[in-house]
Amino acid sequence: MNTNPARGMRDFLPEDVRRRQYVIGVIADVYQRYGFEPLETPAVENIETLLGKYGEEGDRLIFKILKRGEGAEAGQADLALRYDLTVPLARVVAEHRARLPKFFKRYQVQPVWRADRPQKGRFREFYQCDVDAIGSRAMVVEAELLSAAGDVLSRLGFASYTLRLNHRGVLSGLLEAAGVPAGLHGDALVALDKLDKVGPEGVAAELRQRGVPDAGAGMLLEFFSSVAAAQHTAAADPAAFNRAVLDRLETLLAGTRSEAMGELRDIVRLLVPGGAGAHVRLDPSLARGLSYYTGAIFEIAVPDLAGSLGGGGRYDNLIGMFLGSEVPACGISLGLERILVVMGERGMFPDNLAKAPADVMVTQWSVDGVPDALRLAAELRSEGLRVEVYPEADKLGRQLKYASSRAIPFVTVVGDEEAATGMVTVKNLGTGEQQRVPRAGVGGVLRRG
Amino acid sequence: MNTNPARGMRDFLPEDVRRRQYVIGVIADVYQRYGFEPLETPAVENIETLLGKYGEEGDRLIFKILKRGEGAEAGQADLALRYDLTVPLARVVAEHRARLPKFFKRYQVQPVWRADRPQKGRFREFYQCDVDAIGSRAMVVEAELLSAAGDVLSRLGFASYTLRLNHRGVLSGLLEAAGVPAGLHGDALVALDKLDKVGPEGVAAELRQRGVPDAGAGMLLEFFSSVAAAQHTAAADPAAFNRAVLDRLETLLAGTRSEAMGELRDIVRLLVPGGAGAHVRLDPSLARGLSYYTGAIFEIAVPDLAGSLGGGGRYDNLIGMFLGSEVPACGISLGLERILVVMGERGMFPDNLAKAPADVMVTQWSVDGVPDALRLAAELRSEGLRVEVYPEADKLGRQLKYASSRAIPFVTVVGDEEAATGMVTVKNLGTGEQQRVPRAGVGGVLRRG
Repeated sequence: MNTNPARGMRDFLPEDVRRRQYVIGVIADVYQRYGFEPLETPAVENIETLLGKYGEEGDRLIFKILKRGEGAEAGQADLALRYDLTVPLARVVAEHRARLPKFFKRYQVQPVWRADRPQKGRFREFYQCDVDAIGSRAMVVEAELLSAAGDVLSRLGFASYTLRLNHRGVLSGLLEAAGVPAGLHGDALVALDKLDKVGPEGVAAELRQRGVPDAGAGMLLEFFSSVAAAQHTAAADPAAFNRAVLDRLETLLAGTRSEAMGELRDIVRLLVPGGAGAHVRLDPSLARGLSYYTGAIFEIAVPDLAGSLGGGGRYDNLIGMFLGSEVPACGISLGLERILVVMGERGMFPDNLAKAPADVMVTQWSVDGVPDALRLAAELRSEGLRVEVYPEADKLGRQLKYASSRAIPFVTVVGDEEAATGMVTVKNLGTGEQQRVPRAGVGGVLRRG
Repeated sequence: MNTNPARGMRDFLPEDVRRRQYVIGVIADVYQRYGFEPLETPAVENIETLLGKYGEEGDRLIFKILKRGEGAEAGQADLALRYDLTVPLARVVAEHRARLPKFFKRYQVQPVWRADRPQKGRFREFYQCDVDAIGSRAMVVEAELLSAAGDVLSRLGFASYTLRLNHRGVLSGLLEAAGVPAGLHGDALVALDKLDKVGPEGVAAELRQRGVPDAGAGMLLEFFSSVAAAQHTAAADPAAFNRAVLDRLETLLAGTRSEAMGELRDIVRLLVPGGAGAHVRLDPSLARGLSYYTGAIFEIAVPDLAGSLGGGGRYDNLIGMFLGSEVPACGISLGLERILVVMGERGMFPDNLAKAPADVMVTQWSVDGVPDALRLAAELRSEGLRVEVYPEADKLGRQLKYASSRAIPFVTVVGDEEAATGMVTVKNLGTGEQQRVPRAGVGGVLRRG
């Protein structure tokens, strides 16, 4: 019988789960410090909730669930698996508007499913960690989101990372200034979004193929390259770098797109020096694939890693699709799986995560002694210790060997002599040392390690 | 546009999530104290992994996922949603046998999906909390599982609960002793499993209808009734009650089923007095619906609640269906949704769960002051406090009103005067008191509450 997990999906054994829970715990803790609250939505949504929200390609990748029961026509699907956490959020805000606060700030860490072709590091079931603030158009929201994402990365041990920042309105203004016809803006964005992957020549070729005039394409790419080249000087004074980029944008846009420029300036002004301010870099080439962004856009980059650890932006129209009236919104999504891969490769997990399943193993000496062994285990557990009981009346040597193989640091032995005198022998499997202590003192010895 | 969650499924708003996380946290903590380790499996399984494992009715309730891509015939399903946590565990043990310890003890808290007709308290997406010990036939396993489940309930605040205990082998022996033909044992078990719901007359009628001889049915029901009647005396001396039931069973079985009887006696002998020993009651009428149990069976009952909060038992053959060779296994599943319903109805959640989203809200005084407000927020967060920032330059009164509506206990105000002198005004929204303190002392004031 086939015992593989489904294609592109994974079983998480205990060590995997501990690592995942550690990262999720840091994310949740940081977001809570920013006043975000947890939200969970069902894995399954009505199929109409999802279809048409992710473009043609997205629709194709949605896992569809067969309709059940008598009336169902063969092959009909009425439900589908969650594809991201943003559309369910929009549905929840529309559905529960009256119960939610004016400024609803939620984080959500749950799996999503996409019928993509599985590849190294790309799975069909994977977790997203989304944080979104609903209800305000103020740039405080953008500044706080960037700050929170930065805090998550810092707490996880990422020393150098970049929070790339751009604005859809500014980008549109640049395209106009470059003479790209309005009808080609979408095509140009798709091409520009590949700058990281295919380089300036690749993008230039694609822009040409999509009908963007050569002169405009050249102007755009030259500007982006010169900003990128200045990046290495940015670390010394990030605020000055960002202000310089803003000034160049101002000149290129020549007074157009003043609202978008004002928002970008606001965000930069609000960054806390030493906090997110040390990591945010204006990047006029940043495009982000998704079509629903309406304002600021973000992407998280770390050195020596192609692709991003997450991204997001402002999307003031999406909730309106469900609610009928517009509700401003802005968010960032962290890619848990990529974060885990990078942290694993770079040895960034704390040592104590690979911990033993228990602090101590209680051995069995004789069949008659088993009830007392279970009592000892209960006593130690009531002191908060994690206690494994070897389940079978086995040779002591085999029990010790098993405890060692599980990396359990201590075992207790209660032989006939100990039982008669109310003592317990505690053996340190690392050092081989053992000591006989009164029963009430065992917990203390174990806690001192 | 329809904004409902899918039928039988639920959105969990922040307060719901906090309650769920609290209960799951207690469950995980207790199980870890018993040496159990976390496991997670995909929500989606290959459809063959699930079909045929849950009986005909179970197969009908499995959510099936449409095959994708060019080659797929219309309506074909190749994947399905997880239906329980036991079959995926069996698959994982078979798949990863070489990487797992000899005694693999795992807990798993994840949602499962069943296309049941939704009813009050019955959902199509719900969480199971399973704990299983793989690899040993020793009754230490049963005793530890009962003890762990009891600890969970005690820690959650359930004062009186019963861990009902029986054994499939003993039950079969009883059916034989009652003259139920071997071919009718399955039917008789199904009928007896309804004793709680339909009472002795209902069961008697169903046994008769299924062809069980009246005399045998009468003998069984009389025995079960007399044990049930003795229950109210059990609290005073549970061990004596259990031993008395064992003795009556011994007499009725007249020397048959000695292995099963030995196992039951072992479990009772191993219970820690004052721990699980105070809550386990032998109940010879307990049948459990599922067909895969091979030994001891358990069910958790609390007063004034029809149905159970969980159950389980030994199933020594299920893993063999995937692995080819038998591996002993035993487990208990807690029903998270029912536990939450009961705790909600009985007011058992700690008060601090309905907590505010933040310890303090930082107000905005003027547009120019916003960068400094964000810096103050960053300072307080670095001290571990949860800090909300009111995002917009609004009237102070409206900001205070918003903080109150969110039950945030404190706000900070930095007006022109405070800004000039490096002070911060901290206002307690509960008492109305306010004090002006040096900026470095704000965290201390807030922590003292």
